[in-house]
Amino acid sequence: MTQTVDRETAAASTSPAARTEAWLGRFEEALRARDVERAAGMFATTSFWRDLVSFTWNLTTVENPDGVVDLLRHTLDASDPSRFAAEEEPTESDGVVTAWIVFETSVGRGRGLLRLTEEDGEDKAWTLLTTLVELKGHEEAKGSSRPMGVEHTATRERTTWLERREQEEAQLGISVQPYVLVVGGGQGGIALGARLRQLGVPALVIDKHARPGDQWRGRYKSLCLHDPVWYDHLPYLKFPDNWPVFAPKDKIGDWLESYTRVMEIPYWTSTEAKSASYSEQTGEWTVQVERDGKPLTLRPKQLVLATGMSGKANVPSLPGRDVFTGDQHHSSAHPGPDAYAGKRAVVIGSNNSSFDICGALWEVGADVTMVQRSSTHIVKSESLMEIGLGDLYSERAVAAGVTTEKADLIFASLPYRILHEFQIPVYDAIREKDQDFYDRLDKAGFDHDWGPDGSGLFMKYLRRGSGYYIDVGSAELVADGEIKLAHGQVDHLTESSVVLADGTELPADIVVYATGYGSMNGWAADLISQEVADKVGKVWGLGSDTPKDPGPWEGEQRNMWKPTQQEALWFHGGNLHQSRHYSQFLALQLKARSEGLDTPVYDLPEVHHLR
Amino acid sequence: MTQTVDRETAAASTSPAARTEAWLGRFEEALRARDVERAAGMFATTSFWRDLVSFTWNLTTVENPDGVVDLLRHTLDASDPSRFAAEEEPTESDGVVTAWIVFETSVGRGRGLLRLTEEDGEDKAWTLLTTLVELKGHEEAKGSSRPMGVEHTATRERTTWLERREQEEAQLGISVQPYVLVVGGGQGGIALGARLRQLGVPALVIDKHARPGDQWRGRYKSLCLHDPVWYDHLPYLKFPDNWPVFAPKDKIGDWLESYTRVMEIPYWTSTEAKSASYSEQTGEWTVQVERDGKPLTLRPKQLVLATGMSGKANVPSLPGRDVFTGDQHHSSAHPGPDAYAGKRAVVIGSNNSSFDICGALWEVGADVTMVQRSSTHIVKSESLMEIGLGDLYSERAVAAGVTTEKADLIFASLPYRILHEFQIPVYDAIREKDQDFYDRLDKAGFDHDWGPDGSGLFMKYLRRGSGYYIDVGSAELVADGEIKLAHGQVDHLTESSVVLADGTELPADIVVYATGYGSMNGWAADLISQEVADKVGKVWGLGSDTPKDPGPWEGEQRNMWKPTQQEALWFHGGNLHQSRHYSQFLALQLKARSEGLDTPVYDLPEVHHLR
Repeated sequence: MTQTVDRETAAASTSPAARTEAWLGRFEEALRARDVERAAGMFATTSFWRDLVSFTWNLTTVENPDGVVDLLRHTLDASDPSRFAAEEEPTESDGVVTAWIVFETSVGRGRGLLRLTEEDGEDKAWTLLTTLVELKGHEEAKGSSRPMGVEHTATRERTTWLERREQEEAQLGISVQPYVLVVGGGQGGIALGARLRQLGVPALVIDKHARPGDQWRGRYKSLCLHDPVWYDHLPYLKFPDNWPVFAPKDKIGDWLESYTRVMEIPYWTSTEAKSASYSEQTGEWTVQVERDGKPLTLRPKQLVLATGMSGKANVPSLPGRDVFTGDQHHSSAHPGPDAYAGKRAVVIGSNNSSFDICGALWEVGADVTMVQRSSTHIVKSESLMEIGLGDLYSERAVAAGVTTEKADLIFASLPYRILHEFQIPVYDAIREKDQDFYDRLDKAGFDHDWGPDGSGLFMKYLRRGSGYYIDVGSAELVADGEIKLAHGQVDHLTESSVVLADGTELPADIVVYATGYGSMNGWAADLISQEVADKVGKVWGLGSDTPKDPGPWEGEQRNMWKPTQQEALWFHGGNLHQSRHYSQFLALQLKARSEGLDTPVYDLPEVHHLR
Repeated sequence: MTQTVDRETAAASTSPAARTEAWLGRFEEALRARDVERAAGMFATTSFWRDLVSFTWNLTTVENPDGVVDLLRHTLDASDPSRFAAEEEPTESDGVVTAWIVFETSVGRGRGLLRLTEEDGEDKAWTLLTTLVELKGHEEAKGSSRPMGVEHTATRERTTWLERREQEEAQLGISVQPYVLVVGGGQGGIALGARLRQLGVPALVIDKHARPGDQWRGRYKSLCLHDPVWYDHLPYLKFPDNWPVFAPKDKIGDWLESYTRVMEIPYWTSTEAKSASYSEQTGEWTVQVERDGKPLTLRPKQLVLATGMSGKANVPSLPGRDVFTGDQHHSSAHPGPDAYAGKRAVVIGSNNSSFDICGALWEVGADVTMVQRSSTHIVKSESLMEIGLGDLYSERAVAAGVTTEKADLIFASLPYRILHEFQIPVYDAIREKDQDFYDRLDKAGFDHDWGPDGSGLFMKYLRRGSGYYIDVGSAELVADGEIKLAHGQVDHLTESSVVLADGTELPADIVVYATGYGSMNGWAADLISQEVADKVGKVWGLGSDTPKDPGPWEGEQRNMWKPTQQEALWFHGGNLHQSRHYSQFLALQLKARSEGLDTPVYDLPEVHHLR
């Protein structure tokens, strides 16, 4: 490869393609020679290598040549990488060469995104994303390798597709144990279930609801997705061209149900996981479940909690909760507005759930007061779609060749350490575009922010999963005074009111606690034990040392989609985008283990926070 | 446009793009001047213009300049075509320029495919396909114009998607009449239902089965599609990448059921149409239906029969049918093989159904005899897929940019008059590839053919819809003697046998009449009246004057997807390909009528055959 480059003319060698080829050639040579220092020297002084499972059997980012040295020292022999090549014509912009690349490891094939920049007259890697696409010998049957579906022959041993499906259904979880048990069958469990099915990993998804999609159907009636369709596709089967930009909850529910059937995902409805324990001796979980009310024991090798990234509901223990005579419930249990027409509602909290519930209550003619306890980041859905997502997830992106799959990789290639730097200008533009709206919010006394560093919504989502509202109409009601606003902490409840710390009394027939959620390891505490929950520690957050995301810096979402300190326990979830994209890496990790491949995990993080 | 061309250099003007531009420019100029003779003079001596609804409000093909004169004389003023342009770079091969084109008419936008050839030193049209894509002001909401799904505002008049769906369901067919009633909810009714829904035409699909997809689920258990996945996509939502090449019947059933829900098609299950009559006075059908056993009257303006292109079962009235003591039924009523293990089965007929049923009976260990009454065209599924469809419908076609939509238009652009000329070499190649297989069939005494002119399967399908078997394994059983073969007409049945004209007696516990189907207007006779069925005449067939497709030449499938001699009565159906492709044109014809557009039909054919 380097020989080829040497022979190029000087002019050609400065083309993005030639620069990429040269860098990849030198990099591969250094790796083949196991010359870790030489390879690390090809990274810029400030640089980032993010690996999703391909080198590290982990989701991890290392920084700068030092970090690269450490990663390679631990992973190079086992991964034995080779065949680096550009996948399509690299491009150059503002001095940065961007190249889609492919490569192989000892066990798999990968795809990545490389950005080169010149430092001291040499091309150095500024960012490198490497991701595992497939395991050799375990490639997915799709496209030109899709299954035939029928054996075109006559045989007296034929079983039909339906017979096989029925037999599998009769056996799985009864006489045949699933290798993976996925607890929770919302979009996360379903996307993972589809990928595991496609990879041939015996897996079972269980969910307490009566039908797939009920996780959405059961929520308040005006709910629609806050993210646009291009961002929301599930694996293998995209929403059709006539699918709405922001799908109503029941339509998403129907889609998830259809998708589950079309993808042939083994899925038990009306099934609750009651307890689980892991045996180091047998390498097996014992999970007690109740299926249609009947107890049953499952013995999977791997346990995935996909019960919602929001974790368990935070319900504040306020004095007077027991004397209040009206309805009161956490936002996650809110039944919708219909019973509350003409009633006085007090909604505590001022983030997404609160706005959605306040808006729906206002729509039925309730008298609504929102209690704001701390500031909230507000961004209009249209602006977010246009300015925040448009280059990656939109009709215009699709027209420009940025498929959902490419968009996911581009997005994943921006290191979390510097992602806020890319986000700040986006929100500056949004602030300018919607200045009038923000002025009106200010005037109404609503306390809003742009994140601790002005980096806006997505960083808040990644860091803490809270503290924002994507405005789909309710913020206008606050700005207009249609939804009343109160400020401060709640002191106590009386029989018929909420009393704030400053003495303000808010008469109430219904109180909604839109007070957020705990860490996902709370699910593990309930299902397994507090000990295991503590061993695993906090789930979610980057360690950015910003509010609700305490440091130290971790560089990836804590404990999500990757090995945890508890053997064979995994966390999966997030929005539709994350459910789609990260299910790929979780599924490949599980597949590798089910096939008995060696999966040495690089850099399993320490636990710094219990919740 | 012509000015631009005149200014081109001689060299450039011979490029396919320049030749296309020049031809389109001159053609448009002639049309604008209403100079029919000049426009027709731009067609080659032997030439074909196939129009799907855009000029003619019909599916029709005219031939040669004379035909073009006639078409234009009748349609030019009303269609007022304009804005002809190449849609992408035209190509040239073997002296023929091929160009994807777009154009507009007074009411719509169209897409077409033009082939130019040189005659007397001038570029002339050899084939022209023009198709209607959308009606102006009634464009489909999809892609960048997809619905928003949610109104991003707060309003006290909000109804949710679910509430609207429930209200519609409660009203449609009860207090609100559908504009279109589609009788039959297999792939044909479902594809049409999806398009009508997308076009905003109030339509209702009814079907006698309990669930969409039961049309497939109810058939014999080893049935899989005989056509590959790339040929089978439905509108708007393609099968996923991991869908099998030949889908098993129950999987297709599940897909159709999911598709019906995802596309929000109003669909009544367990509903049978009992009778229908049309009033010229009110322009309305009165259709008596039974829904879940309860009678109900529907009053649609348009009635579509989508009850199966095969039409009603042909059951021969043989002497002795009443004395035979075993099971006997038409192939369409065959319950599958399971009850017949070890039994003696006689299957009368030697086409697709017979082979499928014989194979399945053999697989459970029945003693099977096939009675061949006339010769059958046999082609192996793999060969058909590879040689017959591969350029248009395959993974390789998709990779080469031939989307399903493009493939449909390319296929539609080959005039039926000369289609056999394109087909003959395909089957020559198949014959050569599978020579050994055909030799073995011959040796087994099986009488097979390649169609009256050697044009093979697809022409047989278009001409008569019968007379062939796509081998998915059973022909091998005949070649091997595993399925026994008898020849000749059936003379009569005894208590326990089938007796052939030559006296051969075949002992039988079960007799299956795989004896084919009548014309689809048989459905109209049953549902409406014999008078209307006769008025409409034979459905299907091109008029090729080959067996079971009597002339005169018609040039299109008789009565399919286009106006018939019975006002407001339409026939829809065919395989998945046809259900997908032709539902577009039927839906646009219905949409235009529902919007009160003028739809002058050119060349409504005379009726030559009653069935």
